Amino acid sequence: MALRVGVVGGGQLARMMIAPAVELGVELRVLAEEEGMSASLAASAVGDYRDAETILAFARDVDVVTFDHEHVPQDVLHALVDAGVAVHPGPDALQYAQDKLAMRAKLDELGMPQPDWASVSDEASLQAFIDDHGGRAVVKTPRGGYDGKGVRVVSAASEAADWLADGGPLLAEQLVDFTRELAQQVARRPSGDVVAYPVVETVQRDGVCAEVIAPAPHAPERLAEIAAQVGVAIAEGLGVTGMLAVELFETTDQRILVNELAMRPHNSGHWTQDGAWTSQFEQHLRAVLDLPLGDPSPRAAWSVMVNILGGPASDSLDARFAAAMADHPDAKIHTYGKAPRPGRKVGHVNVTGDDLDDVTYDARSAASHFLD
Amino acid sequence: MALRVGVVGGGQLARMMIAPAVELGVELRVLAEEEGMSASLAASAVGDYRDAETILAFARDVDVVTFDHEHVPQDVLHALVDAGVAVHPGPDALQYAQDKLAMRAKLDELGMPQPDWASVSDEASLQAFIDDHGGRAVVKTPRGGYDGKGVRVVSAASEAADWLADGGPLLAEQLVDFTRELAQQVARRPSGDVVAYPVVETVQRDGVCAEVIAPAPHAPERLAEIAAQVGVAIAEGLGVTGMLAVELFETTDQRILVNELAMRPHNSGHWTQDGAWTSQFEQHLRAVLDLPLGDPSPRAAWSVMVNILGGPASDSLDARFAAAMADHPDAKIHTYGKAPRPGRKVGHVNVTGDDLDDVTYDARSAASHFLD
Repeated sequence: MALRVGVVGGGQLARMMIAPAVELGVELRVLAEEEGMSASLAASAVGDYRDAETILAFARDVDVVTFDHEHVPQDVLHALVDAGVAVHPGPDALQYAQDKLAMRAKLDELGMPQPDWASVSDEASLQAFIDDHGGRAVVKTPRGGYDGKGVRVVSAASEAADWLADGGPLLAEQLVDFTRELAQQVARRPSGDVVAYPVVETVQRDGVCAEVIAPAPHAPERLAEIAAQVGVAIAEGLGVTGMLAVELFETTDQRILVNELAMRPHNSGHWTQDGAWTSQFEQHLRAVLDLPLGDPSPRAAWSVMVNILGGPASDSLDARFAAAMADHPDAKIHTYGKAPRPGRKVGHVNVTGDDLDDVTYDARSAASHFLD
Repeated sequence: MALRVGVVGGGQLARMMIAPAVELGVELRVLAEEEGMSASLAASAVGDYRDAETILAFARDVDVVTFDHEHVPQDVLHALVDAGVAVHPGPDALQYAQDKLAMRAKLDELGMPQPDWASVSDEASLQAFIDDHGGRAVVKTPRGGYDGKGVRVVSAASEAADWLADGGPLLAEQLVDFTRELAQQVARRPSGDVVAYPVVETVQRDGVCAEVIAPAPHAPERLAEIAAQVGVAIAEGLGVTGMLAVELFETTDQRILVNELAMRPHNSGHWTQDGAWTSQFEQHLRAVLDLPLGDPSPRAAWSVMVNILGGPASDSLDARFAAAMADHPDAKIHTYGKAPRPGRKVGHVNVTGDDLDDVTYDARSAASHFLD
């Protein structure tokens, strides 16, 4: 009898769980939002993840429910738990990925390093925060933002007037002087074991992850250790099960501050598919099934991942694919089966090797075949 | 529009094409023999591969038809070709994998090194062959044998009387004095490019592959070069497209002789999933789609694959899985979703690393958790 994992959400993260599930002999079932999504090969149902009945019916035939995203409402998550379904990560952990204000408060409680922040419900309190922080601040809607959406840099409270008018508090954060962004991934089993991947550097363009370098170059050992400790402490402190990604700022004075959390496989860990002994997708399956975790060590000195964004007209995709493969026989090209639209992540390229310059050049060059 | 590959046969070789198909964005469809087979996740149809109508209907929605096995009859293969379907490998190549007498004759024509052989249709001619070769010979049914089935070592023609009585000639082969068995894999595109994997050592038990060591230890460079040349010459001479495995004897006088051919991914190449830049399953998909081939180089100094045979009672599989994972966080465990039966291949373990002794120990130790 194979172990069965049910994934709510049919996007590329669910899709990339298919390969390790097949290799491990785990039966993967996906509740997709609609037909023809990335993970459609494993889609056993199509339905609304906000509907408790739909998810309860889906959960009946699996050993554990996990997620492609963090958007399943708390009442639906609790209905699953109340029905005796194993849910990983569980609602108590997921609340911190769903609500950035709750996350900031909890991280303060845990003593985690983070930017100054405040909950602001009106223009006066937002303006006060801006005035206290050099005349600028980052304002975020506590819920629903991703890939740069729901985030604004403002220098006057009036620039967030529309969001404030929607009611409910906003998160105001200090605009951090950072030299670069890092990401720390850890995996944690329900029974407690936790492993940390090496901290990586993430390069964002227009608020979207463009490249990842693993491990983060020029990272002193102390910084890598602190990042791993922060990742483990957050996973344990928030009760996260499965993969956790902690997005970090490295500040100009060489501290690290927690930016965002994701409780699922994450773009910053796509390099692990070809560059680590255990990919984040295999690790997530092992963790949510409470199986022993795999070795998170890198397989090579350097791995570089370059996202394929937007992408070409579909009629020429095959030719571009062939050209990229012909130029880079060592590049691992991953695609998500998604219709290309400007700025949409439709795939990525992983390259690993001993020389960072070579690896970076090869990964960018292979990905460049897919640019318009 | 994704490229679509149709695989005839729903066994573990088709199953192991699912992971690279998903990664590459290739749509994989499988014509399975029955429900619940290894590759059922990608099974789009269930039907009889000996029936031309069934395969023609299956072929209608794919860009190329390929195979999990070599048993599709020639008339069905030709019906596909006549209908304009791309079939890789094609019937002209597959005939040599289907008929060992045709294979031996063709390899002689190509000047390939192979054991002495003869086509024998009666006891007298078989006895004459035995007498000419030291009183023993290997007798094979030309068709349908695999994993040691259809093969006998005989010292008198009467020991093959039952097979001779079935009519049709048998293949008699010299019993080769070999020190070990090797396997050479190559991939070839329809448009002609060909790449060779490193020659590997295969360890058989009871006629079934038990372990593979990649690359073959203590293989002089000259021997590895000759093996690669033989593999390429056979792929080109027989017009093979996709993956070709050439099973070889290394003789006591350090020659290599061709034993068997397989025109598909092969057990001797399972190590490539975790030990080569391009796995044989990804390579097969690229080759049959006539895409540029991937780098066949090893990713580490040594890779060892150990088959999981027979396997435990299914009620304890999860516990054994967990124990193997806990002891060997670096071992890659692959299972086929097949009900365990004595001697049946139900999975394999891959381990790679710098030290052959360590790698071998780890792979055997991880696999031993699944033994009764």
